This record gives sequence, structure tokens and C-alpha cells, in this order.
Amino acid sequence: MATDQLSLLTDKYQINMMYAHWKNGTHNKKRVFEAYFRRLPFGNGFAVFAGLERIVRYINQLSFSEEEIAYLATQEEQYDSGFLDELRKLSFTGTLRAVPEGTLVFPNEPLIQVEARVFEAQLIETALLTFMNYQTLIATKAARIRKIAPNDILLEFGTRRAQEADAAIWGARAAYLAGFDATSNMKAGMMFGIPTKGTHAHSWVQDHASEEEAFRRFAEALPNQVTLLVDTYDTLKSGIPNAIKVGLELQKKGITVKGIRIDSGDLAYLSIHARQMLDDAGLKHVQIVASNDLDENLILNLKAQGARIDSWGIGTKLITAADDPSLGGVYKVVAKEEDGIYIPTIKISGNPEKISTPGKKKLWRIISKRTAKAEGDYLALAEEIVHGKTYLKLFDPVHTYMHKIVSDYEAHEVLHTIFEDGRQVYQLPGLDAIRAYHRSQLGLFWDEYLRKLNPEKYYVNLSQQVWDIKMKLIQEHLTTKRQDEGRNDTV
Amino acid sequence: MATDQLSLLTDKYQINMMYAHWKNGTHNKKRVFEAYFRRLPFGNGFAVFAGLERIVRYINQLSFSEEEIAYLATQEEQYDSGFLDELRKLSFTGTLRAVPEGTLVFPNEPLIQVEARVFEAQLIETALLTFMNYQTLIATKAARIRKIAPNDILLEFGTRRAQEADAAIWGARAAYLAGFDATSNMKAGMMFGIPTKGTHAHSWVQDHASEEEAFRRFAEALPNQVTLLVDTYDTLKSGIPNAIKVGLELQKKGITVKGIRIDSGDLAYLSIHARQMLDDAGLKHVQIVASNDLDENLILNLKAQGARIDSWGIGTKLITAADDPSLGGVYKVVAKEEDGIYIPTIKISGNPEKISTPGKKKLWRIISKRTAKAEGDYLALAEEIVHGKTYLKLFDPVHTYMHKIVSDYEAHEVLHTIFEDGRQVYQLPGLDAIRAYHRSQLGLFWDEYLRKLNPEKYYVNLSQQVWDIKMKLIQEHLTTKRQDEGRNDTV
Repeated sequence: MATDQLSLLTDKYQINMMYAHWKNGTHNKKRVFEAYFRRLPFGNGFAVFAGLERIVRYINQLSFSEEEIAYLATQEEQYDSGFLDELRKLSFTGTLRAVPEGTLVFPNEPLIQVEARVFEAQLIETALLTFMNYQTLIATKAARIRKIAPNDILLEFGTRRAQEADAAIWGARAAYLAGFDATSNMKAGMMFGIPTKGTHAHSWVQDHASEEEAFRRFAEALPNQVTLLVDTYDTLKSGIPNAIKVGLELQKKGITVKGIRIDSGDLAYLSIHARQMLDDAGLKHVQIVASNDLDENLILNLKAQGARIDSWGIGTKLITAADDPSLGGVYKVVAKEEDGIYIPTIKISGNPEKISTPGKKKLWRIISKRTAKAEGDYLALAEEIVHGKTYLKLFDPVHTYMHKIVSDYEAHEVLHTIFEDGRQVYQLPGLDAIRAYHRSQLGLFWDEYLRKLNPEKYYVNLSQQVWDIKMKLIQEHLTTKRQDEGRNDTV
Repeated sequence: MATDQLSLLTDKYQINMMYAHWKNGTHNKKRVFEAYFRRLPFGNGFAVFAGLERIVRYINQLSFSEEEIAYLATQEEQYDSGFLDELRKLSFTGTLRAVPEGTLVFPNEPLIQVEARVFEAQLIETALLTFMNYQTLIATKAARIRKIAPNDILLEFGTRRAQEADAAIWGARAAYLAGFDATSNMKAGMMFGIPTKGTHAHSWVQDHASEEEAFRRFAEALPNQVTLLVDTYDTLKSGIPNAIKVGLELQKKGITVKGIRIDSGDLAYLSIHARQMLDDAGLKHVQIVASNDLDENLILNLKAQGARIDSWGIGTKLITAADDPSLGGVYKVVAKEEDGIYIPTIKISGNPEKISTPGKKKLWRIISKRTAKAEGDYLALAEEIVHGKTYLKLFDPVHTYMHKIVSDYEAHEVLHTIFEDGRQVYQLPGLDAIRAYHRSQLGLFWDEYLRKLNPEKYYVNLSQQVWDIKMKLIQEHLTTKRQDEGRNDTV
């Protein structure tokens, strides 16, 4: 399968900054960037990281074709030919760390860390964020749906409403890794080995002289996979009676109708009556599939009304994350190389939440040995020793007086090294392994963090050293600003 | 440039229906399907059709590779090998009509009409809807933004927040065709010839010992394209004074600072003060670019507050259509071949708006010769004569007592033939031609239909013949249903 050529999936300003670095001779200086989001989507208590497989494919294909170089040469910036030569020989030579797919992640902790020549680190920002933002969003939405329907069959049916083809394909994968059972998208099925499911459309029924005839012909053609759509004309008066009639008739021929699908109307009322009608006819094994603009809120309400639905086909609201359609992930420089060592750097903002946390960090998940549950995440400098201590003080970087002491803990490092000096050192796990890992991740957290509505806040804490550096840089900046102001008065 | 292999970008149920048709020997029967949406997004008065170039590329690549056939052979449906042979020789042999990109379109009118073997017509449904739904949605959002900022520079900056790569690329194109001036996405720039724009990031400023130094070095590296980001530390106290200082200094060297960009804070307050500071320094030519979660509502409010912004960088809310992130386009069979002629067919629903309009139709835009403005759209059967009549009665298919008589009109056919018997007969226009056509389309409509808030409803009317067929089929269906009910009582 051909890999997309995506090296130019980047913002113009990245190319311009690369150029300005090259002109200034600073393009080989190393930088550490970290990608993170600031706010959880959907009011959820966690997000599910996804996008890493896509990122690995992207990094491995990173190079510029002559066609792309020729295009860049036409830009009004009039890039020097020496710069274009530099692009000709570009590949990723840096180190990239990331959270494995399926990991539960939280605001303001690094999900991807790039340590590379600034030339490369800027180029890849845009694509990394695009992949991480969308796939993490969909995996999180899927996890919310799985949470309120733990034992039902969940089908991803969103392709026609997806925001273009890649969203359909990678969104199907993100939903599957966070607990969906299958997708309708055949390309996603082929690319990733996701089970595929499908019934038939209203057009199949309209295409036949009667609904009954349509059902019979469909079932005889596909005897292993018979799910009949019963709402083309009238669900209770026509669709289900016809499905029952054909189902009983086929039973004698050894063909089993597996399910019926209801795609409109009052799904609670219709499913309860459908269940009764099927049971009364001796078709207790026939499952009920529902679809029609479903999401976790509607499913929860249907369940509360006693809906008898075994399987949910979920489209638009999952694949577009309709109630919160973007994860605002950002990518910020946290350290810069000067004379061979990394100097922490900060971005100040009038909005305190937007002040970045400086320094090349490691992300630890602190697990109580007693309960085997996560106590909090912990951001420390790369060189800090975090495990093997008798206790660890965790404090909230917003309300610093809020803290707890953890002893008898294990510290698990959350970021894994994916590329080291440009070489892929991480073996991408298969999707089934990712699904199993995701389930094990859920097991690490108390249910209070996982509930759909008003979850407890899980804390991402800073080490004292990280906190001290952050405070020092904020102070330095304020001093500089006062000097700037003085100087500006004289302009 | 390699074309994506997207033949499997389809739902499983399409493959299953194709298989059931093949098993039943009906796969070569012709059908007419029409794609349309039922509800305008964003409360807008119109939508802007987009997606056709993508559809043409898709149709031209439609074929199954041996790898794809091998994948299908693994499915639990256990497709016969004769079916797989049928897929091996598949290409699109039908006729496809569509609205040109940039056309203003309305609910319940066909935007794409496919007349083909049911085998092909089902296969392509999913991808056609995916492309049409997303690109039309973004073009419509872009048109709303252009409407309230008619003379400003509009920049599409959304790639990092797009729902994956295709959305970034095709969304940038959709925004441009509906009136945006440029994109930051370099791949979209290369693929479609869209002008690309970009400034620099906060990381560039953080990368230097001082903001002033960062500005100087950026401007000297890119003297033709200097726009300076002024909010890394403090917009009014640091960013703008430094931009002014460097701007005046570079002016002496013949380098012009073209703009400053503000990416956070109170954009009304900051831009008004920035304008004053720049003007006072003699830098009246320096433009102000704003970004930060903008959309048409925020821009309108900023303008009402007197914001002095020349150019808007618009990301997340445009590229995801954040306030209404899906266009619910559907694809319904309207006629089926029987003994060589087309029989109209209908889908009934308990919800009257969801009842389809039967028959192979033509879509006409009725233009008053006196005003040169559109009077309404008109759906007639393919064989009806619509132009050259002394008058035309237009009536609303919902409130049928609402009608108007139009005389002295021109009738413009809105759907164009794109493929005829599998052969592409339509030459895709260039993007600049599409943009000009879109502007001319806007000129056809009274401003009441185009306004952002509470627009007047533009009517899509049915011909008497279409209406009569629809009523006849609804009556027939109700009769059949009563028979079905009677029969079911005896099961």
C-alpha cells in the first residue's frame, strides 16, 4: 500500500522559520518541543491517546521530492537555492518520544516530545498535531460511549459524515482501539484488520416489489450475515412482521436471521415492542441493532427508558466528535541548546493557563502498590530520580497548597522512545494489543475519574525542580519586561 | 502526484448489497440515485456546493486491485468467486450529473445524480457523500465568513486542528473557492495552486535572546514577507514597541514590515491601540493580522467594537465547521429500471420531511429577466419542458397553497453532466474560474437570502408532475401497507 507523501502537510510559517534559521545559521541547533492539550473534551475526566501509528508512518516518509522542491522555489519568499539543497537532504534525525496508543492521558502533560534540530522539529509540528488532535479526540469519544454500554456491540458507521476520507479511516481505527467492536469502513478494515460489519440500506427494500421479498432475497444471498433493516415503510406494522415471517421461513432452510436494524423513530418504544414481537415468534436469538444520530448521551437515555437494543451503529456524532469537534493540542518549545546544553525556555501569556512549563521533562504515572491504582501523574526533569524513593510529594501546579504525600508507590514512565537519532526503535503493537493495553489502562484508575458526567479531576503534578524553574523563568521574564518598558519609553 | 486508492472507501453494506444483487442476477439493472441534504448548516440561507473535483478523481480511479480482492475474499460473508471476478472488471460505466463547485444550493434538491448499474451506484454512495458533505460544509462556512468581512484578507490557518490530513487539504481548497484569499497549508498550495501565507510562531521569539532580536533576524531573512507575531510576552508593552523599533530600523535598509499578528488577548482593544501606535510611529502601511479561535460571529462582534484588523487568520472553527460539524447529505434511489424504462420509487418515513421525492429529475434555477435575480429553484421530471413557457407556477412542496407565478423568466439548468456512460465529459474548471463563478452566483440572489442571521427562505419548488407522482406513490404505499397489515394478521 502506497504511503501518502505528506512532507508538505505543514504550515507555511514552519517553512519560513526553517528558512530564517538556515539564513541565520541556527538550523542545526537542537530544541526540545512538547505536544500537549490544555482542556479535556466532552467534559470527560481523561483522554485516550491515539495517532502514533500515523505519526510513525509520517516520520518514516519524511523527505522532499524534486516536485516539492520545485514548488517551494516558486514561493514569493524567494528562498535561496542553498536552503532548497538543505531540504533535498532532509530526513528526520532526531529523537521522538510518545505515549503509547490507548494510554489514558490528561491536560498539560507531554504526549509527544521531540528532541531534534530546530529545522526538523518545526517542520513536523503541524502534521503531528493534526494526527494527535483528531485521533485522540475520536478515541476519547469512543471510550465515553463504551463506558455507558460496557456489554453491547458497538459499530462505527460514520464514514459518509466524516470530515473527508482520512478522518473516516483513521477515525474508525481510533474508535476500535478504544473499545468499539467493528466498523463499516472497508478500507479501514483492510488497512488495520478491524472487523467490518454492515446490513443493507433502504434502497435494497425499495428495489424490490415488496419488503418481504427484499428480506428473503437478501437473506438467501448472504445466509451467514442476515441483519434486516425494518424501517423503510413502517417498523412495527410492516418491517418487523415481514422480518419475522422471513426469519421463520428461513429457519426451516437452516438460515438464521441474526438481527434487525431500526434506523429511525422512537428507538426506546420501537425496540421494546420489537423485542416482544420477536420473542413471541420464538426468535429470541435475533438481536436488535439501532442507529440514527446516536451518541453516549442518547444511548444512556435509551437505556434508562428500558430500550432493548443489543448493538449500536454510531455514525456522525462519533466520527466528527460533534459536541466538541477539536482537541486543541499545542506544541511548545521547552528547551533550547546553547553551547551543547539544554536551557529551559518558557512562553508567557496574560492567561496563566497558557504559560508553558519549561524544561525537558519525563512523565511518570504514580501507582500505589497497595491498591494498584494511579495516584496522580508527575512531571519531573529528565535527570530527576523518581522511583525508589520512600515518598513523593505531589502538588497541584495551579493550587500549590493542595498536595499529597505518596509512599509505597511504583513510578511508571509514560513516554516511550519511538525514534532515537532518526532510527525507529519502537515496534508498533498490533491493534488487538493496543485494545488490551487500553483496557488495562482503564483498570489503573478509580471509577470516579472515568465516569461520564462530572468526573473527579485526576492531577498532573510538577516536581519541585520543574516548579522552581518555571517560577524562576517567570520572574526573569518580568524583570526583562520592565527593562523593555523602560527602553521602549525612549523610542 | 499519486492518486489515492479509494475504491474500498465504502461501507460494508454497499458490498453486501452488491453481492446480493449479483446473487439475484439484478446487478446490471440501472438505477437513478440523487444526493441532497435536508437542512442548511449554521442557520445559513444557502450552501456552497464543493467536492466535485475530488469526486471526479475518485470516479476515475475506481477499480479493485488484487490486494483488495484478496481482502474481500477473507470476509465472513464468504463471497462467491464469481462475484470477486465481477469486481475485478469493475469501473464506473454510468452517467453522473452534478452541480458545479461554487454553486449556491438549497435543501432537498439533487446536487449529484447517478444513473448507473445498481452494482456501481451502491458502491460509490459512501465516498460521494463523504466528499460532498465535508467540502460543501466548509465552503458554506467560508462563505459566511466572507460575507461579514467582504473587503478583508481571509487566511485559512486550520491544518493542525483539522480532522486529519484530507480535511486540512480539501478544506483549505473549499475555503478558497468560497472566497478565502490564502491558506497556510503547503500541500494544499501545491496541489491546487492556492496562495500560501504564514508568519512565525512564538517559538521563533523564544528561540532568541530578546524579542527585538528575534524580529530583526526574521525580517532580515525574509525581507519580502515580514509579518511579526507580537504577543509572545506582552503585546502592547513589548511586542508592538519592538516591532515598531525594528520596522523603523529596517525601513532605512529598504526592508518593509508588512504586518504584525496578534494571536491572543482582547483583539478589539489590542488592535485599536496597535493601530494607533503604528500610525503614530509613521507605520500606517503596516497591516494588523488577528488570529485565535475566530469565526464569523466573533469577527462581526470585533468589527462592531471598532477593531482595526485588516487580515484574519481563521483556523479551528472554519476547518471543523465547529458549530455544526456535519452536513447530513443523503443519497436516495429515485427511479429503477424495469423492462427498459425508469419507474419512480419512493422512501416513506413517519417523518414527512424524510419522504424522498421520486423520479429522475432536472433542477432548474428560475431567473427573472427583469431583475436578473433568482426567483426560486424548480424540480421537474427530466422530460418536462421548462423554458420558453409564458409563465411557470412555483409552489412550495411543504405548504402547497403558497405559490407564485413567474413570467418573463430564464430557466438555467443547475446539474451538469460530468460522466456519460463512464466517460468524463466535463472539463474541471480551474480554482480561479470556480471562485469567479461563485461570486457570480452570489450576484444572482437578493441579499435577504444571503444575510448571516435569519435569512429569508429561498424556495425549492416541485413541478406539478413531480408533485403528482409523489402523491400517487404515497397513496400506493398506504394501500400496500394496509394489505400488508391484513396479511400479517394471519401469520
